[in-house]
Amino acid sequence: MKLTVVKVGGKIVEDEESLQRLLHDFSSIEGGKVLVHGGGRSATAIAAKMGIESTMIGGRRVTDAEMLQVVTMVYGGLVNKNIVARLQANGINALGLTGADMNTMRSHKRPLKKVKMEDGTEQMVDFGFVGDVDSCNGHLLSTLISEGVVPVMAPITHDGEGHLLNTNADTIAGETAKALASHFDVTLIYSFEHAGVLANPEDEASVIPLINAENFNQLKADGTVSGGMIPKIENALEAVKAGVKQVIITKADAIDGTKGTIIR
Amino acid sequence: MKLTVVKVGGKIVEDEESLQRLLHDFSSIEGGKVLVHGGGRSATAIAAKMGIESTMIGGRRVTDAEMLQVVTMVYGGLVNKNIVARLQANGINALGLTGADMNTMRSHKRPLKKVKMEDGTEQMVDFGFVGDVDSCNGHLLSTLISEGVVPVMAPITHDGEGHLLNTNADTIAGETAKALASHFDVTLIYSFEHAGVLANPEDEASVIPLINAENFNQLKADGTVSGGMIPKIENALEAVKAGVKQVIITKADAIDGTKGTIIR
Repeated sequence: MKLTVVKVGGKIVEDEESLQRLLHDFSSIEGGKVLVHGGGRSATAIAAKMGIESTMIGGRRVTDAEMLQVVTMVYGGLVNKNIVARLQANGINALGLTGADMNTMRSHKRPLKKVKMEDGTEQMVDFGFVGDVDSCNGHLLSTLISEGVVPVMAPITHDGEGHLLNTNADTIAGETAKALASHFDVTLIYSFEHAGVLANPEDEASVIPLINAENFNQLKADGTVSGGMIPKIENALEAVKAGVKQVIITKADAIDGTKGTIIR
Repeated sequence: MKLTVVKVGGKIVEDEESLQRLLHDFSSIEGGKVLVHGGGRSATAIAAKMGIESTMIGGRRVTDAEMLQVVTMVYGGLVNKNIVARLQANGINALGLTGADMNTMRSHKRPLKKVKMEDGTEQMVDFGFVGDVDSCNGHLLSTLISEGVVPVMAPITHDGEGHLLNTNADTIAGETAKALASHFDVTLIYSFEHAGVLANPEDEASVIPLINAENFNQLKADGTVSGGMIPKIENALEAVKAGVKQVIITKADAIDGTKGTIIR
């Protein structure tokens, strides 16, 4: 059976118009499907209303005890359950999950991490209650998907000792796709702000149609692919190596699998 | 297979010590189990932090659009996911659910309702985004329970048209027990602040051990049972009529099924 795992960022699910379009497009995907969502902007907004300041270092949120409460509420509750209710209205039998639910995804608290700061120096940063994923349990997930259930995953995991941890949504999508690759024919779609991996960052029409282990080295060597795109593609190639049929990097309004950069 | 559905109020799950005891006791229950929780105090506290006032009429929360966001976050996210993570640490394969998840529980927005006010007058009250339950879908729930999964249900339902609705946790527990009665041998436990239904409200030792359709009329007629306890027992008797084996009304620290008032 074909299974599509779609990851969408917070920006898409937090704007009414783009959310509506996304849920329509997602609902139209044939076969099994999984939606993985972010929600950072809502978390920042709700935290601000509660008088809690958001701290970002190197583009990543620092999650102290109070902020963990906020992201648990916002990702696991507000954003997740609204998506689930709206998918149900589209006739999709959605099930909202954090990694704690059915022990779907285990992680451990991230140790201090060396981060390149804006001024170019490196610092050891404690990101707080942030989880680095250890394992995804695909067993019950695959049973449910076979029964027609559509998991909607919030970027929260647990450590198995009673603690929830804030976790990167890209990682959750990748680990889920890999864990389900032995049960289904999996396509993993990462939606982002561009039409795909661009040969020329100024030109949205310059999408590289296909990246594989062979041409990736060439694209890196000649500088076509650089910066933050390199680890993204490395993760995608790793997912393919782990059994995922293909990874597609595309715009959020083109998640039907026909556009964007295919990595396989 | 034996299945125990336990309903606990917000007060229990919002105090660290009583929550820990509850989760320990709940984890020790043999056979299948379901936990239904409240969370009203946390909702009031988080709402206050966000500058949102809580309005109660006749002891029930009025849920406007802002308050619906708060209860979705707090019941469906904060309270629910923390319980799930802690049950996982106890070796219980918990799965947090709202009624929207897997279409578990459908409701419709409550119409204006006649409410007796504190001054004795009656008024038509709009409780806002509050759901009166229409149906509980026990199919997937029973499959999961048979696989060892323990549903943890937040007091939120959906209307099938994309809207979440704040819903009474007692009702959710009752409807869940009834929907699962054709699959399991169901005991429904309502925990509250007393040791059971008391013959003398001043005496915690005066627990009435058994109430059934026969002695209930007598207990009502002689005034032993009165006030808010009457609809509670009527609902319990209705659940028994619908196939639930027994309903137990007991204290939150005695949910092992050996104490309290048995209704059957």
